[in-house]
Amino acid sequence: MNANITSPGPTAALAGFAATCPAVEMPVTARAAAGRLLLNALGCAVGGAGDPALARLRGTLAPFAGPPEVTLLGQAGRSDAATAALLNGYAANILDFDDTHLATVIHPGPVLLPVAVSLAARPGVDGAALIEAALIGCEVACRLGNAVSPGHYARGWHITATCGVVGAAAAAGRLLRLDATRMGHALGIAATQASGFTEMLGGMTKSLSIARAARDGLVAARLAEGGFTASLRALEAPRGFGAVLGPAFDADRLLAGLGRHWETEDNAFKPYPCGIVLHPLIDACLQIAHERRPAPDAIERVDLEVHPLVMTLCGRTAPASSLEAKLSHTHAAAVALARAEAGVVAFGDEAAVDPTLVGLRARVHARIDASMPADAARVRLRLASGETVERFVPHATGSRERPMNGAQLDAKFRSRCEP
Amino acid sequence: MNANITSPGPTAALAGFAATCPAVEMPVTARAAAGRLLLNALGCAVGGAGDPALARLRGTLAPFAGPPEVTLLGQAGRSDAATAALLNGYAANILDFDDTHLATVIHPGPVLLPVAVSLAARPGVDGAALIEAALIGCEVACRLGNAVSPGHYARGWHITATCGVVGAAAAAGRLLRLDATRMGHALGIAATQASGFTEMLGGMTKSLSIARAARDGLVAARLAEGGFTASLRALEAPRGFGAVLGPAFDADRLLAGLGRHWETEDNAFKPYPCGIVLHPLIDACLQIAHERRPAPDAIERVDLEVHPLVMTLCGRTAPASSLEAKLSHTHAAAVALARAEAGVVAFGDEAAVDPTLVGLRARVHARIDASMPADAARVRLRLASGETVERFVPHATGSRERPMNGAQLDAKFRSRCEP
Repeated sequence: MNANITSPGPTAALAGFAATCPAVEMPVTARAAAGRLLLNALGCAVGGAGDPALARLRGTLAPFAGPPEVTLLGQAGRSDAATAALLNGYAANILDFDDTHLATVIHPGPVLLPVAVSLAARPGVDGAALIEAALIGCEVACRLGNAVSPGHYARGWHITATCGVVGAAAAAGRLLRLDATRMGHALGIAATQASGFTEMLGGMTKSLSIARAARDGLVAARLAEGGFTASLRALEAPRGFGAVLGPAFDADRLLAGLGRHWETEDNAFKPYPCGIVLHPLIDACLQIAHERRPAPDAIERVDLEVHPLVMTLCGRTAPASSLEAKLSHTHAAAVALARAEAGVVAFGDEAAVDPTLVGLRARVHARIDASMPADAARVRLRLASGETVERFVPHATGSRERPMNGAQLDAKFRSRCEP
Repeated sequence: MNANITSPGPTAALAGFAATCPAVEMPVTARAAAGRLLLNALGCAVGGAGDPALARLRGTLAPFAGPPEVTLLGQAGRSDAATAALLNGYAANILDFDDTHLATVIHPGPVLLPVAVSLAARPGVDGAALIEAALIGCEVACRLGNAVSPGHYARGWHITATCGVVGAAAAAGRLLRLDATRMGHALGIAATQASGFTEMLGGMTKSLSIARAARDGLVAARLAEGGFTASLRALEAPRGFGAVLGPAFDADRLLAGLGRHWETEDNAFKPYPCGIVLHPLIDACLQIAHERRPAPDAIERVDLEVHPLVMTLCGRTAPASSLEAKLSHTHAAAVALARAEAGVVAFGDEAAVDPTLVGLRARVHARIDASMPADAARVRLRLASGETVERFVPHATGSRERPMNGAQLDAKFRSRCEP
């Protein structure tokens, strides 16, 4: 027991890396990935800034907000650094258009961008420092995710929120130049605030979990800066993050290749603003739509063969709102086939109740294929003519094998910054 | 699935009770218990207001705090309602002098008092409304605790924080006069914020978990008031509170006897500011100290026979601070024997490093007796004279069988409001 306390444990090792990893040891590929993370989240936040739930959140929190110091992305006005982190995190996630660390399904961007924005005006902070901090935060969040995957998400933890708050603390701690010990306290103060379960997916409280992760991580680092302390074994202790939230915790995966392999380089970007497991079937439907342009009422039946997670996470068949449409496999297939597009409007409130789409959704049938990879899908149409059209997508756009390229990301960014 | 969604589930039933239970159906015994809860927590908050960690917390949060509207108990100045709830919750818990719902080990007071204080100035809120809200909040928190006990605390969840945030939302929702549906949203918004693990016990982040529960519950109710929505099945859903944090969830225990049996009447009060499992052995040591007044260096050996939880929760043998002393069975025995008292000073920083106590602590030995009730303990002294003194306490002061009476509670309250 005493040996565990005095020797540097996994939490302390991770904190030491976060606090002291020299900038010169961060490879250009990793920095570039961190830059893309910030850029993509910035576009998402601007695009999401008009969301009505965000306006409610901002209005409710107004009496509790401090002096306006930090920009609210895409909105008029400012707020204090903590409230701004919350509101910017909400805006960055609400479109469901995030980046995704594919191994864990963590969306690092909406948690880390707000920390960077809230601390950007600190003395000595420049663009390079923001990118380094995002890189450190992403490494911490994704490595913690690796250490508790796959059981953590499977249990029902909203992994972006639970691991994200620790990553946000690391990013903030880096920008505040915490030493290794204070960084350890920051990670601990953050870890014991981890929360958010996936029952909330599909509703306005979902993005609140991610928003809180950004704010609470930032505040945890500020508390540690001010001398607030926590257990330095927050992740590995018998009643710490790994054991309590876990359900299992693999310290080796937390630390494997630290500073040599950069998880941030595996961070992918969503081409469509909806559950990432829907993306391969959307790719297939868009191919068919672009090539054949079938009229919706000429489609008699659509059969999907999908990975099991499609039905677990996006099994909704009759969405009534944008938030639900983003988690509906029938809607994703129907809108991509009928409109030949799958952007923000295709998953908006209007599309969710469009009678043509509602009719077509009812003719979409999914079959789980346990052997189907998560980034693959097969779609088969039967047309009124009797003809059958089939497409198989082995790797979705935005997957590890087929990442979005720079031009695609630029186009995505611009599309969300347009009015 | 659809049947579960449309029929009122356990969360909706609890929310309906919290929103609509008529005041006239709250028995005088239950109201009195809720009043004691508020009074005891008020004394604790005033007594804890001078804690240095609280000053750090307040200082760090100052740039993020809104206009000063709500009293900070025992401190100069005010803060916004949310930040005040956090700071008052921290103050109310830091002395470890709380009330305790014995079946779950939830301390309802430090979570619920801040909600009452933050909303006390709302139009139409009077003393009776505050007591009713505390009663509702305590019922919700303790019933949720019942539904997940004993596995929840055993897994490592800081149950006061995790169940407390839901209770705080219920109390706030009651004062805001939310209807049953909005109350359900408030409970859901709160439930998905539940966090805090027991690795943080013994450090300054422990009370932060409880403080956040007070603030986050209050804000959850304000969000629901403003039209923010969440799943109405937050507690019972397959990926909701019960299943994700659980580990098990018994909806029957959540709702059994709702409005007929009042859990708040089982809320006990601590006579000593330290882990409640230490209280029976402190009673025994105080009896010996008052009767025999043994000089510390005349005590050759102290043997404790204790319930297993004493060593799980309070197994520390060499505390170096007040926060650690409160969780040390050796310190509790030593200070009660050597000083014949066990108040705030006895568990303060000075006592934690008093050489006389450090020496005596090393002569204290504990043996777990699995058949010992949690509110009982046996203490045996061997004196330098060769004489042996033994005391058995079957029910500690503050236990269900031997609750603190009104005079004891009044004396406790006054002792903490003195400078």
